[in-house]
Amino acid sequence: MISKKYKDMLSNKSIIRQFSEFAIARGAQIGYENVFDYSLGNPSVSPPQKFTDTMIDLLKNKNSVELHGYSQSLGIPAVREKIANYLNQRFGMNYTKEHIFMSTGAAGAIAHALRCVTAPGDEVLIFAPFFAEYWSYVNLSGAIMKVVPANVEDFQVNFEAFEEMLTEKVTAVLINTPNNPSGAVYTSKTLKRMADIMTAKSEEYGHDIFLISDEPYREIVFAGTEAPYVSKFYSNSICCYSFSKSLSIPGERLGYVAVNPECTDAEYIADMCGQVSRGIGHNCPPSIIQLAVAECLDITSDLSVYETNRNILYKELTSLGFECVKPGGTFYIFPKAPEKDAVAFCEKAKKYDLVLVPSDDFGVPGYFRMACCIDTEKAVRSLEAFRKFVQDENYFR
Amino acid sequence: MISKKYKDMLSNKSIIRQFSEFAIARGAQIGYENVFDYSLGNPSVSPPQKFTDTMIDLLKNKNSVELHGYSQSLGIPAVREKIANYLNQRFGMNYTKEHIFMSTGAAGAIAHALRCVTAPGDEVLIFAPFFAEYWSYVNLSGAIMKVVPANVEDFQVNFEAFEEMLTEKVTAVLINTPNNPSGAVYTSKTLKRMADIMTAKSEEYGHDIFLISDEPYREIVFAGTEAPYVSKFYSNSICCYSFSKSLSIPGERLGYVAVNPECTDAEYIADMCGQVSRGIGHNCPPSIIQLAVAECLDITSDLSVYETNRNILYKELTSLGFECVKPGGTFYIFPKAPEKDAVAFCEKAKKYDLVLVPSDDFGVPGYFRMACCIDTEKAVRSLEAFRKFVQDENYFR
Ligand SMILES: Cc1ncc(COP(=O)(O)O)c(C=O)c1O
Ligand SMILES: Cc1ncc(COP(=O)(O)O)c(C=O)c1O
Repeated sequence: MISKKYKDMLSNKSIIRQFSEFAIARGAQIGYENVFDYSLGNPSVSPPQKFTDTMIDLLKNKNSVELHGYSQSLGIPAVREKIANYLNQRFGMNYTKEHIFMSTGAAGAIAHALRCVTAPGDEVLIFAPFFAEYWSYVNLSGAIMKVVPANVEDFQVNFEAFEEMLTEKVTAVLINTPNNPSGAVYTSKTLKRMADIMTAKSEEYGHDIFLISDEPYREIVFAGTEAPYVSKFYSNSICCYSFSKSLSIPGERLGYVAVNPECTDAEYIADMCGQVSRGIGHNCPPSIIQLAVAECLDITSDLSVYETNRNILYKELTSLGFECVKPGGTFYIFPKAPEKDAVAFCEKAKKYDLVLVPSDDFGVPGYFRMACCIDTEKAVRSLEAFRKFVQDENYFR
Repeated sequence: MISKKYKDMLSNKSIIRQFSEFAIARGAQIGYENVFDYSLGNPSVSPPQKFTDTMIDLLKNKNSVELHGYSQSLGIPAVREKIANYLNQRFGMNYTKEHIFMSTGAAGAIAHALRCVTAPGDEVLIFAPFFAEYWSYVNLSGAIMKVVPANVEDFQVNFEAFEEMLTEKVTAVLINTPNNPSGAVYTSKTLKRMADIMTAKSEEYGHDIFLISDEPYREIVFAGTEAPYVSKFYSNSICCYSFSKSLSIPGERLGYVAVNPECTDAEYIADMCGQVSRGIGHNCPPSIIQLAVAECLDITSDLSVYETNRNILYKELTSLGFECVKPGGTFYIFPKAPEKDAVAFCEKAKKYDLVLVPSDDFGVPGYFRMACCIDTEKAVRSLEAFRKFVQDENYFR
C-alpha cells in the first residue's frame, strides 16, 4: 500500500526550490544572464584540473574490472586511510582508516551519523539559522529535531537557550560551521563553551551526548577568520565532511564521516554506518569518484571568487542600509530584511530580477539568504538592481 | 548515545563475506589465481568501451561546472526520459520520465520502493532462495520480512505456500528474476499465476499489494530461456533495475526504479522516492555516471562468458553426480550439496581451494552457490579440484 508518510511529504515544497524555479522561468524570458539568481548553493567554479585529469587517467589506465568493481561497503580502504592521514597531519588528530566512512556527501554523512548515535524518539538539537534539509535528516531518522533560537548578534550560539533545551532527552547536537545560511564560523570560544556544557550535561544525565559537526564549507573561510577543527574540542564528536563545495563536485556525491578516535565506541561507529547503509541500499559511494578525490585531498577549486563576492556584496548592502553580520566563510550572506515579512520582501525583489531566499525555512524569520556562488561580474551588475529596489521601496529612510 | 540497533547488527557477519575473506587470505598464500573463488557476485568482464569513452568525453568536453553540479533529486531529467523511452520501446510499456527514479543500484532502488509502498509493521513476502541482503532492505525499512519456502523442483514459485502466506498483513511482495542464487528465470506462467493470486487477494482484502521486482540480472539470460518483463503482468508493480551487472559497473552504483504507469498513485511514487532519499541523505546518484550510462542503455558488456561458464560447470557437476536445476540466467549456479549440512560441505571444499557458499543465508539449507563470474580458464581448472573433492569424500557412491 502507498506510504502515507512519504506521500504527505510531497505537499511540503522547499521555498528555496520555488524561488530557484522562478529564476529559471524568468531566465527563459529575459536570458538567464540577466537574472540575479542568488537562490541555490551550487558551486560556480570548476573542479581542480587535477580531479579531471585523475578521472581520465583512471579511465584510461586502470584495469576497468577493478576500477568499476564493488568496493567495500565502508569505502575503499586505501582512500579511507589517506583521509585519516590527511586529517591527522592537518588537525593533529589520531584517526585511522577504521574511523572513516565514505558517504554520499555531507547529506549522507549526517543521515548515517544520526542513526548511529540516536534512537527513535531521542531529541536532536540544532541551531537557527540552519540548513533547511536538517528537518528531513533528523526527523526521517526517527529522532525529533528541536531548534535552538538564533543568536542574531553574531550568529554564534545562543547559550542561554542551548543550556535550557539540552535536556535529558537530547542524545545528539548537530552544528554547522562555517554556517549555511549565516556565513558565521564558530570561534574557539564558542566551541569550548559548547563542549563544556555538553560534558557537564552528559555527566549529569549519565549518558553520552554526541556532537555531529556538519562541515561542507570547511575550506571556504575568509582572510581574518579562524576556523577551528570542531573535533578537537569534544571527544564524543563526529565530523561530517563533503567534497561538494571544496572540489566543486556536488553532483558526484562524495563525503565522509570521521569518527573521533576518543569517542565512546569509536571503533564501531564507522562499521555501524555500514549497517545503516545496508538498510537504505546505499552500500558505498561510486568507486571512481572515491579514487579521484583521494588524489585531491590537499587541494581545492579556486575558491577566491566567493570571498570577492562576499566583499562586494557586504560593502554595498551595508552601505545601502542593510543590517548584516559579516560572513567569515561559506558562499552565503544573510542580511536582515528591511521589512518584517521576509517572504513579502523577497517577492518584491523579483520585480528587479533579484532572486533572494526568505529566511523562514532556515528557522529565523525576517532575514534573507543570498547564495553568492555566481560570477563576480553578475554580482556587480546586481548592485544596480539592489539600489533601485531600495530606492523605489523607500527602505532605510 | 550509541544506537543499540546498529551496534547489535555488527555481530551478524555475512557468510558470503567470510568465505570471500578466506579466498583472499588463501590467495595471499598460494596466489589468487590458484584459488577457485566462487564466492562473490562481482562481474568479471569489462564495461563496454562506449561507457569508458563517454566518461572521458564528458570529462574532456562538457562544461565542468554543469557536469559535476547538483542534479535534481530524482535524477537527471534527460536521463530519466531516455530510460523511459528505452523501456517503452523494448517492452511496450508507457513510462514517462515521471515514473523513473535514479537510484544507487538495485539495492537503493529496492530500499526506496519498499518505503514507498509499505508502512512499518507491514509484511513483505520474499521467496527462498533469496539474495541475503533482502533481510536488511526489508527489516530496516520497518516492514517485516516473511520467507515463502522454496520450490526446489525448478526454483519457480511454491504457490501453495505463497497463497497461504499472502495474508491481509502483506502489502508488498518482492521477487528477483533472473534469480540470485538459483539462476532460475520466472516464466510467463509463473508470473501470470502470481499476478492472478495477488489481484484476487488485493480485492479480497480491499487494499493494494505491490509487486517489487528486483531485476539486476535482466540482461544475463541464456539461449533457450525466455525472460518476460514482470511489469507487463501486474499493474501495481515497481521494477528495480541496476546497471551493476549489465554494464559491469557495480562500484559506480547506478540503477533505477521504474514505476508501472498503471499502478495506484503512479504519478507520485518516483517523487516519493525523492522524499525517502532526503531522509537518508542520498539525494541522487553521481551525475557523471548517470550521463555516461544514458549513452549505453541499449548495449551491455560482453556477457557471453557467463553462459560459457554455466555450460561447463553445469555439465561437469551434473556428470559428477550433483543435482542441479539448470540456470536460465545470472552468473550463479546452485547445486544441491551432497551432504545435509551445506556449511560442512563448503568447509571441506576449502581444502581443494574451492570457495563455495553454503545456502543457509539464502533461506534454503542443503545447497551451495557458485558465482561463476570468473575467467573460463579458471573455471576449467577448477573441474579437476571438484573431481578430486568428490572422489576423496566418496560422494555419490
Ligand atoms: C550546511 C549543509 N549541510 C549539508 C549539505 C549537503 O551537502 P552535500 O552535497 O555534501 O550532501 C549542504 C548543501 O548545501 C549544506 O549547505
Ligand atoms: C538479487 C540482487 N539484488 C540486488 C543486488 C544489489 O545490486 P546493486 O549493485 O545493483 O545494488 C544484487 C547484487 O548482487 C543482487 O544479486
